Amino acid sequence: MNAPPELEPLVRGVCAGSERDVARALSLVEDSRAAFAARAVELQRRLLAQTPADRGHRIGITGPPGVGKSSLCRALVGRLRRSGQSVALLAVDPSSPRSGGALLGDRARLTLDPGDPGVFVRSMASGGQLGGLARAAGAAVIVLAAAFDAVLIETTGVGQSETDVEHVADTVVLVVQPASGDVLQFIKAGIMEVPDLFLVNKADLGQVAEVAERELRTALLAGGEAAVTPVLRVSAETDVGLDELVLALQRHRARLEESGSLIAERRRKAVRWAERLLTLRYGEFLLERSGGADEARRRLELLLQQGAVPAEAVDQLARAAGLG
Amino acid sequence: MNAPPELEPLVRGVCAGSERDVARALSLVEDSRAAFAARAVELQRRLLAQTPADRGHRIGITGPPGVGKSSLCRALVGRLRRSGQSVALLAVDPSSPRSGGALLGDRARLTLDPGDPGVFVRSMASGGQLGGLARAAGAAVIVLAAAFDAVLIETTGVGQSETDVEHVADTVVLVVQPASGDVLQFIKAGIMEVPDLFLVNKADLGQVAEVAERELRTALLAGGEAAVTPVLRVSAETDVGLDELVLALQRHRARLEESGSLIAERRRKAVRWAERLLTLRYGEFLLERSGGADEARRRLELLLQQGAVPAEAVDQLARAAGLG
Repeated sequence: MNAPPELEPLVRGVCAGSERDVARALSLVEDSRAAFAARAVELQRRLLAQTPADRGHRIGITGPPGVGKSSLCRALVGRLRRSGQSVALLAVDPSSPRSGGALLGDRARLTLDPGDPGVFVRSMASGGQLGGLARAAGAAVIVLAAAFDAVLIETTGVGQSETDVEHVADTVVLVVQPASGDVLQFIKAGIMEVPDLFLVNKADLGQVAEVAERELRTALLAGGEAAVTPVLRVSAETDVGLDELVLALQRHRARLEESGSLIAERRRKAVRWAERLLTLRYGEFLLERSGGADEARRRLELLLQQGAVPAEAVDQLARAAGLG
Repeated sequence: MNAPPELEPLVRGVCAGSERDVARALSLVEDSRAAFAARAVELQRRLLAQTPADRGHRIGITGPPGVGKSSLCRALVGRLRRSGQSVALLAVDPSSPRSGGALLGDRARLTLDPGDPGVFVRSMASGGQLGGLARAAGAAVIVLAAAFDAVLIETTGVGQSETDVEHVADTVVLVVQPASGDVLQFIKAGIMEVPDLFLVNKADLGQVAEVAERELRTALLAGGEAAVTPVLRVSAETDVGLDELVLALQRHRARLEESGSLIAERRRKAVRWAERLLTLRYGEFLLERSGGADEARRRLELLLQQGAVPAEAVDQLARAAGLG
């Protein structure tokens, strides 16, 4: 787009779930040109104001490349849709560290009904900057959550995507592949504590899937998290475990809601996401200028409480420190 | 340490390969306190001035966690040592994203002769900031390269370590595990173009190792890099392929030297490392303030040509932009 769109009709269109307006809103928050930044921030503010704080379910799907996340997301979108929810899928594509371009591009990931207005799919290049998650992912989730009941965020699985996706999702699902050494990798990388739900994909592989599930359970037990973190075996090919997956997702969201932590967690995570944007944009320098990481967090927290969106809160800290 | 050490005896000791002085120098460059930063920069300057620009061989060993990098490094240190070279191993340990601490700590990675002054081993926590490579890794390599013939840098294999390690190494070795889906992961992550040498570890696994080797060759062929990038099968357990590995490393270094690109590549990579430090410390903001990424690179290049070390060049850009 060449000129920023008018905001009021755009906000109305997004909230009504208009595919065209959602697409335009996503293009706006992805646009890195300075002239568009203020408009993108204002769009997010208005969408946040229109969206009940406890609306919908934001589900992050992560796991190494090649593990079958795309097929699984396609299957999951179909299941959630059939349960009566409108569903958006934000699929973050890896960018080559050398070329900077999206590797997978806009390939048709999904073979879902293209005429169904209750399903929306968008690819986004990671840009290589925020690990395996695009810098605009947080803003994109604000847009999609205003329009759809369920928002799936599929990461590239490279970089820090396993830990970054938790900042924009209520529920983080980690997908592993049988017989891949994935489990050992996650233990060594210290990210066993992040996911809310583990999936062993390709359950049709039989015994190796069972072994992978056992490995996971053992690892969780060792970390003291076995009691709360479910491990499921699924197969997007043969439909195994998908009902259980939908149920487990609903259970996790229900538990968050019952304990009263759904909204609190969303707020806490928005602060973390703002911190990630801050270091990407201004580095450790702004943390120090703001009185250290703890003080910077406290101030971001306050700004978000006052209704700022993450990108806006970061800019305010920068201006207060004489930057920007 | 509480006070920064005297530099002149430290430089002499490092260049003479004194284990105690190398350890002290590493502690100095790892120290994040501001009072130590200028001293650490000056130490690096002097060591660089004392080290011939084409000295030694810097070898980065990367690959996913659990793939057997540590055992392989241990075996390789032994081989290189027997060939008459002094060898240092810098092993970067992962930090937990939640706790920030090193996961593996100072566990004894090596069962080498502890009395041999020609072998030096040091662990360094990644700190979670520069992907799987510690921010002090670049400075540590300057220290170690002044003291030892061969410097091995073992990454955590998480985050961006696969691409970061190329900035501090002459030769990048990527280790994969048979039957792990690793190859597919690397293709999707777009890092097949980074390594100079591929190793399929655990060659004792027989047929699956052969399959993994074939997968790799196919992937390289598809990327047009098959002619130049060797693929070797090795096993640290059974000693298979280690002689070929040492030979392949020597060949890669010899090719760099014959083509006249060893020193040029080291300079080019030091600029890239400086850019990584810049974005970590000051974010995209300093890039913009410096006239854009290309202009920032040009100025870092110039400063390094004039003898600055990366951290110093970054600070100069920051001061020129009114920061720091």
